[in-house]
Amino acid sequence: MSASPDDLDAFRQAFRRHAAGVAIVTVQGPDGAPEAFTATSVASLSAVPPLATFNMARSASVWPAVATAGHAVVHMLGARNRALAERMAGPRESRFDGVAWRAGPGGAPVLAGATAWMGGRILERFEVHESALVVLRVDRGEIGEADAPLLYHERSYRAPGDVV
Amino acid sequence: MSASPDDLDAFRQAFRRHAAGVAIVTVQGPDGAPEAFTATSVASLSAVPPLATFNMARSASVWPAVATAGHAVVHMLGARNRALAERMAGPRESRFDGVAWRAGPGGAPVLAGATAWMGGRILERFEVHESALVVLRVDRGEIGEADAPLLYHERSYRAPGDVV
Repeated sequence: MSASPDDLDAFRQAFRRHAAGVAIVTVQGPDGAPEAFTATSVASLSAVPPLATFNMARSASVWPAVATAGHAVVHMLGARNRALAERMAGPRESRFDGVAWRAGPGGAPVLAGATAWMGGRILERFEVHESALVVLRVDRGEIGEADAPLLYHERSYRAPGDVV
Repeated sequence: MSASPDDLDAFRQAFRRHAAGVAIVTVQGPDGAPEAFTATSVASLSAVPPLATFNMARSASVWPAVATAGHAVVHMLGARNRALAERMAGPRESRFDGVAWRAGPGGAPVLAGATAWMGGRILERFEVHESALVVLRVDRGEIGEADAPLLYHERSYRAPGDVV
């Protein structure tokens, strides 16, 4: 199951051709502290019931919190949230410095200023190798001020452009 | 576990604020026929080993083929592939009409003209309610002609725009 350099190269190059929407996932840590990370893997799994998914490395600093949390919140980001996306991908210790938030579902932080958030119970954590697929059962949410959705592509943040 | 109208509304509105990269997933059907569908849920799970994920409804016409296939191919799409994305989201019977493809990993079709493809063995199919999360172990791939990555947002196909 080990990856050859060729496998890795093909994989990385293929994903460089993909663009992704940017979201922030939050949970309440086991010590009660707010925890967050920036995710480019958020996707809808089903609308009935409302289920969303995200992927993460189990080596991520936030994994111990996600592994034990009962609830999570997924925030959809707009172009205006670029700095927030970078902050929540930076050093874990300072992710919430100066960030406005309130306790949401099950204590998971709801960040101010996202274009939308949805939260609920973590339904499943499927572990595969050193990563995990997490399924969220959404039972609450709110729409924020509209904005162009934030994208990540080729190591830069962008907004959508023309209809093709 | 049933969804209230409020849950659904929040969920749909939140995902309307999200933009997604567009991909096409292919497998060889149990009868040997090529099968495909357009997916906006393709994400990286890990680079070592190279793992990719996608979500689908188990009510999808292609699910019986994905449920039994040993291998799959994920194609990253460019703006030039918009018509192909629409075709592979249309009636299943005619998805391959006039489409150029060849047999790839385990017989899964490799479509011509994508910006990249990656294929390999289906490692896991996690079923949750009426949907499934599928994990692909990538062991082969190829890069095609470059193009702006194809996005889906607010029911329209777009290319990325300005850096924000």
